[in-house]
Amino acid sequence: MTHAGAPLLRSIEILDQHGTRRSLQIPAERPLTVFIDKRELVTLMTLGARPELLVLGYLLNQRLIDRLEDVQAISVDWDVDAAAVSTRAGVVDLQARTARRTVTTGCGQGTVFGDAQEALDAIRLPDARAARITQGQLYALLDTLRQRDSVHRRAGSVHGCALFKGTRMLVFAEDVGRHNAIDTIAGWMLVHGVDGANKVFFTTGRLTSEMVIKAAQMGVPIVVSRNGVTAMGHDLATRLGMSLFGRAGNRHFLCYTGFERFDAEPEPAPDAHPVRAVSG
Amino acid sequence: MTHAGAPLLRSIEILDQHGTRRSLQIPAERPLTVFIDKRELVTLMTLGARPELLVLGYLLNQRLIDRLEDVQAISVDWDVDAAAVSTRAGVVDLQARTARRTVTTGCGQGTVFGDAQEALDAIRLPDARAARITQGQLYALLDTLRQRDSVHRRAGSVHGCALFKGTRMLVFAEDVGRHNAIDTIAGWMLVHGVDGANKVFFTTGRLTSEMVIKAAQMGVPIVVSRNGVTAMGHDLATRLGMSLFGRAGNRHFLCYTGFERFDAEPEPAPDAHPVRAVSG
Repeated sequence: MTHAGAPLLRSIEILDQHGTRRSLQIPAERPLTVFIDKRELVTLMTLGARPELLVLGYLLNQRLIDRLEDVQAISVDWDVDAAAVSTRAGVVDLQARTARRTVTTGCGQGTVFGDAQEALDAIRLPDARAARITQGQLYALLDTLRQRDSVHRRAGSVHGCALFKGTRMLVFAEDVGRHNAIDTIAGWMLVHGVDGANKVFFTTGRLTSEMVIKAAQMGVPIVVSRNGVTAMGHDLATRLGMSLFGRAGNRHFLCYTGFERFDAEPEPAPDAHPVRAVSG
Repeated sequence: MTHAGAPLLRSIEILDQHGTRRSLQIPAERPLTVFIDKRELVTLMTLGARPELLVLGYLLNQRLIDRLEDVQAISVDWDVDAAAVSTRAGVVDLQARTARRTVTTGCGQGTVFGDAQEALDAIRLPDARAARITQGQLYALLDTLRQRDSVHRRAGSVHGCALFKGTRMLVFAEDVGRHNAIDTIAGWMLVHGVDGANKVFFTTGRLTSEMVIKAAQMGVPIVVSRNGVTAMGHDLATRLGMSLFGRAGNRHFLCYTGFERFDAEPEPAPDAHPVRAVSG
């Protein structure tokens, strides 16, 4: 596996409302065409931070590979914007399995080959006793993310994802699309043999159907977003017994579903705030 | 053409940081499988507000149709989540033209069939004398958007797009993906025979490569976003002579490129604000 990271930021000159010209950093975006056993599969638009893990996670989340052993080598060359994947035994029925397309609401990976929902019925997440989160752990996790440097902090316009064990962040990934970011984390989990069952997944992106599907495929029962949820994301998570938290920021959040995994430590309600005495 | 609008909102019960359970509205998300002359093309995940215009704009932006006359009928049936498109003469080489996939950074339509960039070289936008925007027009346009009711205001988690002539909003579209929203507007333009040359396109989404490509394909020379830009979006817009404005909100914005189309009416710089006299 190569380690072909690419420059993530660029400076441009902008004009603001004061008529001032100044320089600003923006995130890179570059095409990465994936070839699997010399056959062109797809072109991903990516930030380019960890392309090998992205490609690996992409293949896994598209269910084109099942195990790390299926892949012999992944070689990324930015001179030609290409990722060459060689498999040990080939991908059975690649043509047929990539024929059906679902264009999802995903930023950065809006396509799912085949019927992803078929795979959902096979997914068994750990029960609510085995995988839980407390309100304090949720706050700690959000504090960790707030304190970390990121492309988003410097340049905006990227999505971030992270995987936590308790309140410890195991891996953080950013990309121009939230789907590339989650796939990069899936690739990291595969390479490091990390199981999702006792983990919490965080994303800055919305909890649409396929974000929930991907988290479920990764075996993660608790998902936290800085953003909101769609009806289909909510349906799927409820059906899978997954906990979804959204609008999660500094000491505020909404638990959308899967209350049974959550140990609330309620904040005082606004009207219960102590009133400061006024002198005189 | 049918008019198969579907319910856009759903109420769910959530649990907040105060331990309070209350109801919240979230946007719908539903699959819409597009059949073209009885052949399955793609499944779009959509809010479902204006599916016929979405499908029409999708086919146009994918360059599977060129003119309204190419389409005989579009019939959407939510009982089977399907859109049946019949063309007058068929789509030449449909198989080949849909074989190559680019998974873009798009929310809601992260796929482009074929090499969209080939088509860019054919695009000629009006010059900077013919298509301009003043700072006052930009503010007026943002005010109009701020004042309008929307799914986003009620439920969040959707992207919005609008097309303006001067400061007059011609059409507004929302969807779970910013790409469905822009395609819906492309469909509206095609149905109403509206040309993009003297228009301004607004999106809540980021200005990534394929958002710029789509706006250019629609012939719109000025694009405004509430969000940011990627390096590739910036490159393409610069190459096409398009003006991009981002981070656009209440009396603030960044002009990323295409300064020559913009008539600045600078706000007083922060340090130029009048200093309030302090008595005593």
